[in-house]
Amino acid sequence: MGWVFDEDTDLVPTGAGTWTVDVSDRWNIGPTPNGGFLMTLLIRAAAEMSPQPDPLSVTAHYLGRTDPGPVSIRAALVKPGRNFSTVEASLFQGDRERVRMLGTFGDLGRQRGPTRIVATRPELGPDEGLVRNDTDSSVVKIADRFDLLLPPEQAAGVLGTPTGNARVTGKVRFSDGRPPDLVSLALFADAFPPTVFQLGHYTWIPTIELTVHFRAKPAPGWLWCDFRTRFLIDGLMEEDGEIWDETGRPVALSRQLARVPA
Amino acid sequence: MGWVFDEDTDLVPTGAGTWTVDVSDRWNIGPTPNGGFLMTLLIRAAAEMSPQPDPLSVTAHYLGRTDPGPVSIRAALVKPGRNFSTVEASLFQGDRERVRMLGTFGDLGRQRGPTRIVATRPELGPDEGLVRNDTDSSVVKIADRFDLLLPPEQAAGVLGTPTGNARVTGKVRFSDGRPPDLVSLALFADAFPPTVFQLGHYTWIPTIELTVHFRAKPAPGWLWCDFRTRFLIDGLMEEDGEIWDETGRPVALSRQLARVPA
Repeated sequence: MGWVFDEDTDLVPTGAGTWTVDVSDRWNIGPTPNGGFLMTLLIRAAAEMSPQPDPLSVTAHYLGRTDPGPVSIRAALVKPGRNFSTVEASLFQGDRERVRMLGTFGDLGRQRGPTRIVATRPELGPDEGLVRNDTDSSVVKIADRFDLLLPPEQAAGVLGTPTGNARVTGKVRFSDGRPPDLVSLALFADAFPPTVFQLGHYTWIPTIELTVHFRAKPAPGWLWCDFRTRFLIDGLMEEDGEIWDETGRPVALSRQLARVPA
Repeated sequence: MGWVFDEDTDLVPTGAGTWTVDVSDRWNIGPTPNGGFLMTLLIRAAAEMSPQPDPLSVTAHYLGRTDPGPVSIRAALVKPGRNFSTVEASLFQGDRERVRMLGTFGDLGRQRGPTRIVATRPELGPDEGLVRNDTDSSVVKIADRFDLLLPPEQAAGVLGTPTGNARVTGKVRFSDGRPPDLVSLALFADAFPPTVFQLGHYTWIPTIELTVHFRAKPAPGWLWCDFRTRFLIDGLMEEDGEIWDETGRPVALSRQLARVPA
């Protein structure tokens, strides 16, 4: 196998509902691992406790900075159900809790009911019109994990010429060829350059809370993403994400509350 | 005072981090109390444990149906911080947990940083062009708690002539004159007729998970609300809400994952 994401989210059981893992620096932004990546560790642990396989709605609150290195993870079934089960999980480093997650799991393959989709995948045009993101991966190591294609004006915005519109669209996939799956969508939901770079706020944007709704299993290929911020108020912003797969299906919605330092 | 919302959310302490309250049926939809109302009980308990006064982002997972009648509430500080603190709370009925909540608190009055809002309050026109929601409050008791004004075609949609567009906009306030505050926004975020009534799905729509971002303290007066569903997939839908106050300020964003029975 040898896919980086699977190597780095391979939890080692240490007891009932407890695991350890060495958080790799390969998902770092500067010195700090990406919050969406940390969420995938918690989802993997939570899935072990859930009678149903698929995360449906997962929320993580980031209590403090996690550093690369060993962490322990605990997960507990809050309430099992026939169709939906709720699970809680926490990530500890040293003796301090750094991330707490609450999520409901289900089985997307057995889910039945009406379908009506009125949104459309972002228009990106042919790949030839897109630009590879050129973020310096010696500082932002996570940039090496993805192929990321952006419209030219947004790619310029990431690097210092803001578009003035707090929106980032583009196509993304793992750079080592690993196909996307449900769990990885939590990572992709937090993997794009922050929307507020396009307003000139080139700074670390700490996530307070991230919620991901997992709506369908993605097909192999590119993920088409659309992130926007409509309400930046006194240094707090939401970032809303939509993720679509190669076949045109919506696969995840995300929203985070994050802080934009003055 | 005698405002119904304050009477019905007046928690009685029973120990360190524990309270009891008799869940009133005045917030019922059919036999079941509104999920947003239950969230306000948990937020009140959580606020008692937090060093900061204001909920910023709160997520509730609904584990099972709560009936009107006595419940116990427990809240615990997960992680105190100088600017943000995370709190967890649970609602129990009998010996079973029915709702679990995870939230981060802060102090909106001390929050500093850039502001940029690019969304606009929904256009509703003059009040004379709106219609009072005529939901039968002998079945949906919560309808008596609010003044709710809707555009005429949406008001008709709630009662049997769906617009075909899964969106509900309108103005709402407490019917007894209580001004809105931050905590009550969690109730208002779940108080409108479901968006999917406008697609003809006139049924109980159980909430799986509800997240509310509290962005500003509302001014006295009407709240202007805009709820929409863009992705209904195999009987699961998100409902996204925006709430604005009388003065034109955005005060809350909400998103829930809910089930639309086949």
